[in-house]
Amino acid sequence: VARELLRQLPQESVLYLGDTARVPYGPRGVDTIRRFALELTTFLLAHEVKALVIACNTISATVAEDIRAISPVPVFDVVHPTVRAAVSATHTGRVGVIGTVGTVRSGVYETHGKALRPDLQVWARECPLFVPIAEENLERHPVARLMAEEYLRHFAATGVDTLILGCTHYPLLRTVIAEVASELIGPSIRLIDSAEPTVGELARYLSEQDLLRSGLSAHQFCVTDASYKFLQIANAILERDVSSEVRQVTLGGGDG
Amino acid sequence: VARELLRQLPQESVLYLGDTARVPYGPRGVDTIRRFALELTTFLLAHEVKALVIACNTISATVAEDIRAISPVPVFDVVHPTVRAAVSATHTGRVGVIGTVGTVRSGVYETHGKALRPDLQVWARECPLFVPIAEENLERHPVARLMAEEYLRHFAATGVDTLILGCTHYPLLRTVIAEVASELIGPSIRLIDSAEPTVGELARYLSEQDLLRSGLSAHQFCVTDASYKFLQIANAILERDVSSEVRQVTLGGGDG
Repeated sequence: VARELLRQLPQESVLYLGDTARVPYGPRGVDTIRRFALELTTFLLAHEVKALVIACNTISATVAEDIRAISPVPVFDVVHPTVRAAVSATHTGRVGVIGTVGTVRSGVYETHGKALRPDLQVWARECPLFVPIAEENLERHPVARLMAEEYLRHFAATGVDTLILGCTHYPLLRTVIAEVASELIGPSIRLIDSAEPTVGELARYLSEQDLLRSGLSAHQFCVTDASYKFLQIANAILERDVSSEVRQVTLGGGDG
Repeated sequence: VARELLRQLPQESVLYLGDTARVPYGPRGVDTIRRFALELTTFLLAHEVKALVIACNTISATVAEDIRAISPVPVFDVVHPTVRAAVSATHTGRVGVIGTVGTVRSGVYETHGKALRPDLQVWARECPLFVPIAEENLERHPVARLMAEEYLRHFAATGVDTLILGCTHYPLLRTVIAEVASELIGPSIRLIDSAEPTVGELARYLSEQDLLRSGLSAHQFCVTDASYKFLQIANAILERDVSSEVRQVTLGGGDG
């Protein structure tokens, strides 16, 4: 999502906050996700941002409304724009979703999808090993294909023509997911990624409200644990060296 | 480790604390591990325990001394007893260790091993996917064998005759690790698990200090996130239903 933001809105300044001390959120209970997410929100709001983007499907799917309740600025989640993109893309009205345990159990893709198109049919599958596989840079290792086959088999007989990558880690595995989806679901399957539609919605809002910035941008990448892994992944995704823009921060309550 | 404690010391009462809201610790930086571990220590000490067991190799390997520095009661880590068991077991003086990134980077198995036997040779390999594979109950899935082959290949030409399971999750994968180790390293390879030697050391201490308890035991299993997964795994490992003994707790600073 950050990469897409830098691409679509190169003159905006991004304040990124990654809770690397407490990821992954996917397998945690909703109460824990809410508590952590509100701490992140408080940190970002203290820096006077003009808009918040929840660049995590698990948080978006479970506690986006709790974040909106305390935010004086607009909050963009990754679920709503992605559902709209999927509903536009599907011809059969059958859509698949892959995501974390928290995202899939929330059922929000089905809820929001049916609100837009009442006859929509949604199949969802938890893919808990995809996040660690992506974090370990194993996207070209046989383990990625093995687990993609395990998880995508779920959609084989459903007739879905559109598959939502319902976790911001999954685009890192896009190549293998696309290959296996083509084999097991069908060659015309379309993959829907959250980043482009989410940032598109943010860009429209900023433009309509005349909030677009001009001039030079200055980014900050904040993390709660400055582990080697964050820089490795961030540099790979953003295709630039962000090390001089990264700093470690502590969240309220001493638990950052 | 808890199972072994209940087995060797059935009359003792166990206060278990699992930081399920913030696991895994393995990939985090040492500063974060220290901060989290000291919060756990403070919680346990407030309950007037007579001894502390650090039933996590990552914490034991990185910040055991920080815990000892604040604890008025003896602190038993899983590294020292396991190293002693491995040094007793090896004939060739060549020992392998598998563990998390934090444990392997600490180098403590080699440091402590060489202190006991200066000519000891130690090979270590990080196995980051083993924890999620164990947590997802995939020990019989082909992914467990695939990753065991990937990780244990590292020891193929080393001549190790002893392999330390240097993470408390790995005994859940013991069957597949044993099979693959036998194939790739050699049929006489011995696997060393932390639980038995660690609890053995605790039992000796309690006996020598005349601190052994008699009478009925009463256990408490505390977790920072009461997710479905904890009960599933705890019941499977302990081979009993602990649901009535589990409660969710909050650690100091509101970050439990």
